[in-house]
Amino acid sequence: MTAPRFHVTYRVTPDDSRPIESHAKDICIEETVEIPEDCVPKGHWEAGIVGIIEQITERPGAPADYDVRISYRTDIANEAIPNLLNVLFGNISIRRGIKIIGVEFTQAQLEAFGGPRFGIDGIRRDLGVSGRPLATTAIKPLGLSSRELAALCGGYARGGLDVIKDDHGLIDQHFHPFEERVSRIQDEIRTANARTGGVTHYYPMLAGRFDQVESQAAFAKQQGCYGVLVPPLLIGPDTGFYLARKYDLAVMTHPTFTGTHFHDPRHGMTPAILLGTLFRLFGADISVFPNSGGRFTFSGQECQDLAAALRGPLGALKPAFPSPAGGMTIEKVGAMVEAFGDDTALLIGGALLRYSPDPEVSARAFVSALEAAVAARKEKRS
Amino acid sequence: MTAPRFHVTYRVTPDDSRPIESHAKDICIEETVEIPEDCVPKGHWEAGIVGIIEQITERPGAPADYDVRISYRTDIANEAIPNLLNVLFGNISIRRGIKIIGVEFTQAQLEAFGGPRFGIDGIRRDLGVSGRPLATTAIKPLGLSSRELAALCGGYARGGLDVIKDDHGLIDQHFHPFEERVSRIQDEIRTANARTGGVTHYYPMLAGRFDQVESQAAFAKQQGCYGVLVPPLLIGPDTGFYLARKYDLAVMTHPTFTGTHFHDPRHGMTPAILLGTLFRLFGADISVFPNSGGRFTFSGQECQDLAAALRGPLGALKPAFPSPAGGMTIEKVGAMVEAFGDDTALLIGGALLRYSPDPEVSARAFVSALEAAVAARKEKRS
Repeated sequence: MTAPRFHVTYRVTPDDSRPIESHAKDICIEETVEIPEDCVPKGHWEAGIVGIIEQITERPGAPADYDVRISYRTDIANEAIPNLLNVLFGNISIRRGIKIIGVEFTQAQLEAFGGPRFGIDGIRRDLGVSGRPLATTAIKPLGLSSRELAALCGGYARGGLDVIKDDHGLIDQHFHPFEERVSRIQDEIRTANARTGGVTHYYPMLAGRFDQVESQAAFAKQQGCYGVLVPPLLIGPDTGFYLARKYDLAVMTHPTFTGTHFHDPRHGMTPAILLGTLFRLFGADISVFPNSGGRFTFSGQECQDLAAALRGPLGALKPAFPSPAGGMTIEKVGAMVEAFGDDTALLIGGALLRYSPDPEVSARAFVSALEAAVAARKEKRS
Repeated sequence: MTAPRFHVTYRVTPDDSRPIESHAKDICIEETVEIPEDCVPKGHWEAGIVGIIEQITERPGAPADYDVRISYRTDIANEAIPNLLNVLFGNISIRRGIKIIGVEFTQAQLEAFGGPRFGIDGIRRDLGVSGRPLATTAIKPLGLSSRELAALCGGYARGGLDVIKDDHGLIDQHFHPFEERVSRIQDEIRTANARTGGVTHYYPMLAGRFDQVESQAAFAKQQGCYGVLVPPLLIGPDTGFYLARKYDLAVMTHPTFTGTHFHDPRHGMTPAILLGTLFRLFGADISVFPNSGGRFTFSGQECQDLAAALRGPLGALKPAFPSPAGGMTIEKVGAMVEAFGDDTALLIGGALLRYSPDPEVSARAFVSALEAAVAARKEKRS
């Protein structure tokens, strides 16, 4: 039994009186051979084709739960994203009380999936920005014309923002068709960059039918966009990562349609696993998530764990930017810098619209607040 | 304000003391313009670009919850599956206590998405089976050779099963590479069909990278497969439906990786909405789901609601087969026929392996049990 194996830690909250070993074995079988235990061919057990329980740790509480560490042969999961997700959390997603809290991949898996192609250093190099977080925004609202959105972007770029992404609701609607929007916005940003001598990157949203997303990625590249905004669970967990690699685009991931994983502390995956480790493994250079204290539900600790999963050691994979967002404001910049440090893509969206009718003014205020916060943090530490 | 609108009913369980109207407005804004209310352009309200609260109904309880019916302009969601899902349950998936319990589409939307292309009548016609449920199985376990899996399928086909699908864990692994497996299995089934004069359809599993799934669909068609097994949330909500349409293949959907929607009665979507109405709208001819009383968590009522969503009126869309599965056995056939009626694709997987070492014997026993159950049901009713 020498086939390489990877490890997954599930937090299991039994919903019946069977012993935890029985629940753990259910996972081992359900995520691999998916047949009654007595029908598993003898050779399958010997070859380690069925998942193997490596460790069970009880966590006392009411109800008690257990951390169950299971190993799987890497060749069951293959090297494609859908297949890996199928083994991690396929059919058992429809059982009760199972949450993925840890994953450990083999070197070969890390190399096969590859992780970020630009990463924090690559994006900083191409922006020419060091020593501070990135100033990032989302352009909105949907329903404006392409011209109005482009004008906003021009102002943001002249005001010094580093990264502009489409709001994730900006798809290929008639208000602002994808190609018209992307070419107008990229033109405005190019003009602004030429005028200021600065660099602003634009990430348009990939969304549409199977046959549309590839032409969107190709068009974004052709127009000179630096990256694309990828909603993995909306267009397919593999789709956007694959297309970004093919067309040499950076990847900013968006968490839309992922929230069912996080709603129940006893089910799904933690934000650190799905939006952190997995999205980074798959190729995210920047991972957007809803910061605590905004409109959404993540706790401060969950956000810190997520940032650590994006930036901490993961084989030879490049670190990725955490991008806390969702109801953030210029007033919160100091606290966000304190909480997340320099290697962060701080994202303020709607609040920039509210700050001033002139996007250039809003952008300058955001960047100034960022620089002031970084200076204050340095002073505090010295 | 004449732009056509579609309707979504969310069950909302407020997690704070704000009035329900405030929570409902949050959804209207979050799923469309996603900016602070006071920043929404005046024209956007007038044009109905922001979601509109149509009705709020209180459902007393502890905690109380509310059925909130919201309408959206259809042109916000577009006619692509990812975009529709983004409006239905994008960012709000990361907020607390919101569950979709109803959706009402416009005629134009129903026509644009199109629904099943074969449907119950089309599949019955091509199988030559009427007046009874379909006998369906999944071939397993992964890790056997293609030759062993093909031999199983030959036996099942000679024994009279109507539909054979890959187990959803059978991807493009080296044990049974996709093309080798599909061609061997389809050959065995063709030979069996020629010998018995019967018809058995085979649905191989589509799974892999963006660039692999299309060649898998094309290969399945070229080999003469009738349909494909599509895991929408694993390969992309649009991907499999799009490819099946392009290559003229029937679609059997698989619920792997969907379960986070169902775990919490106050969050996600009901099985009837996701595996029923939406998968049917997108093009499922058969929707596999975990039946109550098996290894999974759906209640009997949830299964009935799901079957009704697949078979009931939905504009001019064809009805689709519900396919209850997950720990079903030959002994349960009578109860399943009683519960779901004739227009059902009863799926027994692992229990056929256990029933007899000869798959032909197991298949015959399954079909006999089915015919006996149908006869008993007719007699009872007459």
